[in-house]
Amino acid sequence: MSAEDQLRALGLELPSPPKPVASYVPAVQSGDLLFLSGILPMRDGKPAWTGKLGRELTVEQGAEAARLACLNALAVIKAHLGSLDRVARVVRLGGHVASAEGFTQQPAVINGASDLLVAVFGEAGRHARLALGAFELPLNAAIELELIVAVTSAARP
Amino acid sequence: MSAEDQLRALGLELPSPPKPVASYVPAVQSGDLLFLSGILPMRDGKPAWTGKLGRELTVEQGAEAARLACLNALAVIKAHLGSLDRVARVVRLGGHVASAEGFTQQPAVINGASDLLVAVFGEAGRHARLALGAFELPLNAAIELELIVAVTSAARP
Amino acid sequence: MSAEDQLRALGLELPSPPKPVASYVPAVQSGDLLFLSGILPMRDGKPAWTGKLGRELTVEQGAEAARLACLNALAVIKAHLGSLDRVARVVRLGGHVASAEGFTQQPAVINGASDLLVAVFGEAGRHARLALGAFELPLNAAIELELIVAVTSAARP
Repeated sequence: MSAEDQLRALGLELPSPPKPVASYVPAVQSGDLLFLSGILPMRDGKPAWTGKLGRELTVEQGAEAARLACLNALAVIKAHLGSLDRVARVVRLGGHVASAEGFTQQPAVINGASDLLVAVFGEAGRHARLALGAFELPLNAAIELELIVAVTSAARP
Repeated sequence: MSAEDQLRALGLELPSPPKPVASYVPAVQSGDLLFLSGILPMRDGKPAWTGKLGRELTVEQGAEAARLACLNALAVIKAHLGSLDRVARVVRLGGHVASAEGFTQQPAVINGASDLLVAVFGEAGRHARLALGAFELPLNAAIELELIVAVTSAARP
Repeated sequence: MSAEDQLRALGLELPSPPKPVASYVPAVQSGDLLFLSGILPMRDGKPAWTGKLGRELTVEQGAEAARLACLNALAVIKAHLGSLDRVARVVRLGGHVASAEGFTQQPAVINGASDLLVAVFGEAGRHARLALGAFELPLNAAIELELIVAVTSAARP
């Protein structure tokens, strides 16, 4: 099943892609690699999840925030490529988790994004991954994701 | 106007590129991509801006620090490629902002670097971007930048 | 001397590569670039070095942790490529150092990894590098590394 079909089968709707707010753009492609800008868990133009893991938010809430940020990332990819089916491989996901002192379960939080990538792209969604605890994030967001995907020139069958 | 011409038109002078101090080098090219080492806001061999945003430094000072770090990055690129005109595209900028607790305006700080890239490279300077709040940075620097640029084999006209 | 020979000459034994524990994989190759997942200083399935630099750990201990994490990275590369001799160039090393407030010697800590890369790969081991102070890291690890290497299709002689 194609990634676009899979998205529909999962009943997922992509949000509007976040708008560029400065001298940067949501994504830049160089060769086969598409580099995304940092992605927050945005809903209706503002972060839906703020605060820190281990203080304001539980691991489950953090994973939900990571999943929402990942949906925003998919929206950016689709806006840039026209279709998610042009993703050949998810190469690398970086997950920055706003963390209170002593919180060390960043991987469980970022699984919310990793699992969504595999649900949508199947084997092509398995990625190299970095999970880090951040001290502060823009707009007090709970999560910020970075993403690199490899792109095919033609759509996957 | 070429990037080198634009730099002159802006009246900007590049600092001496920071020297490698260990087993690493200022930049490594692989294929068309040039990966830079982390860049601090260096002047005369030491960080010109130290301390944390939201405590020792204002957003305006942070943006100035980001701009200075970006000038150091341009110096590294020029030392490596011979001319800034060999930059085909600024691909990705990562900005790490030393942040006091509760400081969440990292994007406004990193704009100091983003705006300079667009001033120098025009449309080719628009990049994917990540802004993060760091707990501590090397040498107590206020800012650390990471940068990936795409390189042309011949100079742009 | 090849990287594999050099490893033997240094008397170094690679640990078992860390196992994937979720929807992500230890490394993804795209074109000539191999992107590794975040690497902790693992020994026997758990982090051998925990806590923060500038509080529980000295710079020397941190450099030892960075060296151990780097050995884990080499194990991942070898498991993926079959031989370290297929590494054409170490492109970029990112080093995240769990830091107590006021600790700013991250570069000296990450030298433990950088020096090992040059000892094993020689000139091809010289890399672009980023050193950052992290607030919290997964499993309370003292160090997390990220790594990108360029790969040759045939083994280096």
